[in-house]
Amino acid sequence: MIGGGGGAENALNTDAERLFCSEWSASGTNSTMTANTYDVIVIGGGISGLSAAKLLVESGLNPVLLEARNRVGGRTYTVQNKETKWVDLGGAYIGPTQNRILRIAKQYGVKTYKVNEDESLVHYVKGKSYPFKGPFPPMWNPLAYLDYNNLWRTMDKMGMENTAAEYTIPKEAPWRAPHAEEWDKITMQQLIDQICWTRSARRFATLFVNVNVTSEPHEVSALWFLWYVKQCGGTMRIFSTTNGGQERKFAGGANQISQAMARELGDRVKLGRAVYSIDQTGDLVEVRTVNEEIYKAKYVILAIPPSLNLKIHFNPELPPLRNQLIHRVPMGSVIKCMVYYKENFWRKKGYCGSMVIEEEEAPIGLTLDDTKPDGSVPAIMGFILARKSRKLASLTKEERKRRICEIYARVLGTEEALNPVHYEEKNWCEEEYSGGCYTAYFPPGIMTQYGRVLREPVGRLYFAGTETATEWSGYMEGAVQAGERASREILCAMGKLHASQIWQSEPESLDVPARPFVTTFWERNLPSVGGVFKFMGVSSFLALATAAGVVAYKKGLLPLSQPVL
Amino acid sequence: MIGGGGGAENALNTDAERLFCSEWSASGTNSTMTANTYDVIVIGGGISGLSAAKLLVESGLNPVLLEARNRVGGRTYTVQNKETKWVDLGGAYIGPTQNRILRIAKQYGVKTYKVNEDESLVHYVKGKSYPFKGPFPPMWNPLAYLDYNNLWRTMDKMGMENTAAEYTIPKEAPWRAPHAEEWDKITMQQLIDQICWTRSARRFATLFVNVNVTSEPHEVSALWFLWYVKQCGGTMRIFSTTNGGQERKFAGGANQISQAMARELGDRVKLGRAVYSIDQTGDLVEVRTVNEEIYKAKYVILAIPPSLNLKIHFNPELPPLRNQLIHRVPMGSVIKCMVYYKENFWRKKGYCGSMVIEEEEAPIGLTLDDTKPDGSVPAIMGFILARKSRKLASLTKEERKRRICEIYARVLGTEEALNPVHYEEKNWCEEEYSGGCYTAYFPPGIMTQYGRVLREPVGRLYFAGTETATEWSGYMEGAVQAGERASREILCAMGKLHASQIWQSEPESLDVPARPFVTTFWERNLPSVGGVFKFMGVSSFLALATAAGVVAYKKGLLPLSQPVL
Repeated sequence: MIGGGGGAENALNTDAERLFCSEWSASGTNSTMTANTYDVIVIGGGISGLSAAKLLVESGLNPVLLEARNRVGGRTYTVQNKETKWVDLGGAYIGPTQNRILRIAKQYGVKTYKVNEDESLVHYVKGKSYPFKGPFPPMWNPLAYLDYNNLWRTMDKMGMENTAAEYTIPKEAPWRAPHAEEWDKITMQQLIDQICWTRSARRFATLFVNVNVTSEPHEVSALWFLWYVKQCGGTMRIFSTTNGGQERKFAGGANQISQAMARELGDRVKLGRAVYSIDQTGDLVEVRTVNEEIYKAKYVILAIPPSLNLKIHFNPELPPLRNQLIHRVPMGSVIKCMVYYKENFWRKKGYCGSMVIEEEEAPIGLTLDDTKPDGSVPAIMGFILARKSRKLASLTKEERKRRICEIYARVLGTEEALNPVHYEEKNWCEEEYSGGCYTAYFPPGIMTQYGRVLREPVGRLYFAGTETATEWSGYMEGAVQAGERASREILCAMGKLHASQIWQSEPESLDVPARPFVTTFWERNLPSVGGVFKFMGVSSFLALATAAGVVAYKKGLLPLSQPVL
Repeated sequence: MIGGGGGAENALNTDAERLFCSEWSASGTNSTMTANTYDVIVIGGGISGLSAAKLLVESGLNPVLLEARNRVGGRTYTVQNKETKWVDLGGAYIGPTQNRILRIAKQYGVKTYKVNEDESLVHYVKGKSYPFKGPFPPMWNPLAYLDYNNLWRTMDKMGMENTAAEYTIPKEAPWRAPHAEEWDKITMQQLIDQICWTRSARRFATLFVNVNVTSEPHEVSALWFLWYVKQCGGTMRIFSTTNGGQERKFAGGANQISQAMARELGDRVKLGRAVYSIDQTGDLVEVRTVNEEIYKAKYVILAIPPSLNLKIHFNPELPPLRNQLIHRVPMGSVIKCMVYYKENFWRKKGYCGSMVIEEEEAPIGLTLDDTKPDGSVPAIMGFILARKSRKLASLTKEERKRRICEIYARVLGTEEALNPVHYEEKNWCEEEYSGGCYTAYFPPGIMTQYGRVLREPVGRLYFAGTETATEWSGYMEGAVQAGERASREILCAMGKLHASQIWQSEPESLDVPARPFVTTFWERNLPSVGGVFKFMGVSSFLALATAAGVVAYKKGLLPLSQPVL
């Protein structure tokens, strides 16, 4: 059964290959060739597909990996040149609790380093810069503070497992949350409008959504977003640099992990093999590539974003729910932009390089220092997020650079920002084989109706890709979890593993330990703005009704009949 | 240039074809073959693609049409058998103002007949049946009546062109509506909650969305839905049988139109040719099919739903906005179900067969009589819509039939409905090459960010398909408008037509004239429920605030902090 194997199948453009293609065209789909036959075909050479194939090889199986692009790494992409030494134009950040990707990196000797956060961060709002320390910019207006404090607290409580079961979103099955239907029917914008009473909190909540999922609050389901934050460990873990998702980078670039895995897999990794059809009607699953090859295997792992399943023509057709799911989970929108300077001028001014920028006209929403750990190649990484990526995509690269430098100059208060020595950027919206970055989002109504088939096998097809993960889905960590889990599902189907072993927890990294986030007594117990209104002693019904009326009026929630008529 | 042509290229499985495939595999993508070369390749053999190809031939060009399935018609699908004579399991209804599809039908001698609406319609709500006449079920509660009247009035005014420009949604560019961003950021559910004060009106509004666009109010953008209703001619035109979109059917089935066009196109129509790649890098555009053929042409028309563009691997990649648009516009969800009876028992009871069913547990939301025009083959057509199609897809066909008959028995008040003689159904969610039915929907935020590239040509690719239409988009009529427009765009690009001739209006059908919908003085001038509250003399601010507070409280719009904490 395990024919071909190892190196023999790498016979592109040989006489055998030509013969093979002739036979194929003459005999239609029932080719009798036994070359290119494997135990498992893994489709997608990002971290998820590579870690799936790696585990299969380690388990004694014979997989092949087909990657559409001419490089591995998928949504991680490291470029090397003399101006930057190396730069991660795709996924780059890792942090505590991301133990699987840290394990694989360590295995290949890829080291991490901390993103600089020694000096102050800057919060830029209403045209002014406010230096701060800690994960979130502080609010000085007392009402805004209460509101803001209540926003994080409420979002975490809606997802958390250690509160009453009534408010739990199971990370492996958010569609089973007690309030799943209710929360899935509203957008994150609606939830923000419900939780927040002040403009400051609402504006920051919008940026929080933009930064974490590269989409707009009105585009995404509240249930999905709450799940997303929860499966990353909560609002503090997902947003923080120190002790959070952006604590570290890989020295030398994130792509090294994929390259190391690909090196180990050797000629099992086939580049430039975009898959266009999967036929499950025969004894073996038959996979065809745009460069006109056929691969056969007992099982297939699709380690690609759900919506890129649409690139493939399936025989037989997918079941109805999966057929529709893959039309319903688009990828986010982001342009990653790196500006290089002669000197690290921001640190001299007491800024670490992290900027949280709230201004509609600013192209960038969030920055981090991207200087190399030895202090060389001073640089600032910034994200053009969601609506802004769509708006600014039509500008020239030069024009984007200019606008980015201008906002950095305003936020950092120095004209030094106007004189970059180099610029790199990557618009992930233009990538056919990613569809966008960082990850897929669920619009309202989709998670509860279609979520349950996200990683449900279809015949001999199994589903990996970071979107199918239950911890740090959307991140490199989720890619590894999903890839390894899909491989174990196949091992289980082959009788080599018990079903209880499919899902495995990961021991904590010794090098990158997680510390808990401590909330203060006040953070836990201060009232919300709504609570203050109540406390102020007006009879509770009237206070709520009147306040809500005012808010509703301001928000345009009142019936439209009057203005329209 | 126009090599091959006519019949010669239909050489599948001949020696020439085999030679061709060998050359192709040996020479890679730069095949020097001149066979299979055309002026235009039309991808998609639904009504849109066929009417595009038809116009091209009539204009003296040499097109070929590639259809993935083994039949033409796309989302129209007529089955013939002895039990039904013929049955439309896909698109079927046409009505006044749909002049293009009526023109083509007439050209081929396909006649229309009126859907029976002689007797009473039935509105089933809260477990009771209420017979009625006219397009919408009446409301008896005075407050509900005002609310309901205001709902239609408001929706139409938000889309209409003959009110103040401030409230206009341009049918060719809804993203340019003065309130486009505001309305695109909210779901139709939010708009319904804003307009409606009563549960009755809200419930009916939900059904109205379900029936018209086979999706849920919380899934779709308010801007998109308002545009959709507007480009069909308003709430009355879209929902009505008599004088509306469901007035008629084609005698013998809707598929005859496609079959007639296909017959005329002869061997230019190639079935079983699913396209998997389009290469625009050479002198001619090169299109490859899953059954291993290459077609070449100067231009390509994609007459398929936007999200099915993802089935194709593009070289060069699509521009960023289009690359992301096609991930963002899913197809609706519907199962079309036909129940056949020995006798037309409902007409004897004074019912025409139209039922508007509001009950969560009922599988069907809307029915129409489907008896043949001569009174033979008594049948009722019913739609399983949106959320219900997802829920009921896992049942057996027998079980769905049983549940459908049960609700018909309850609504029509007779056990005769429990004894069908035949049943037909089609779940469009399972169709790989439709993705769903009737049409694509826009989730919140997508129309304003991506709408403008919906039919913007990409190099030599032009876009048809009913989703790209500006009149009756989503219907057979829109398919024709879009197909003919895309062909004229190419004629214009070739210098055969002036740009001003691309968009053409259509003279009214003499056989199916449109009558205006007349609203009464009271319908136009009765206050909304909000207006009544105001009139009742409480000071306007307090009335609004308190009422809104109550509504907000009931709707759960108040801050979540209290219940969560």
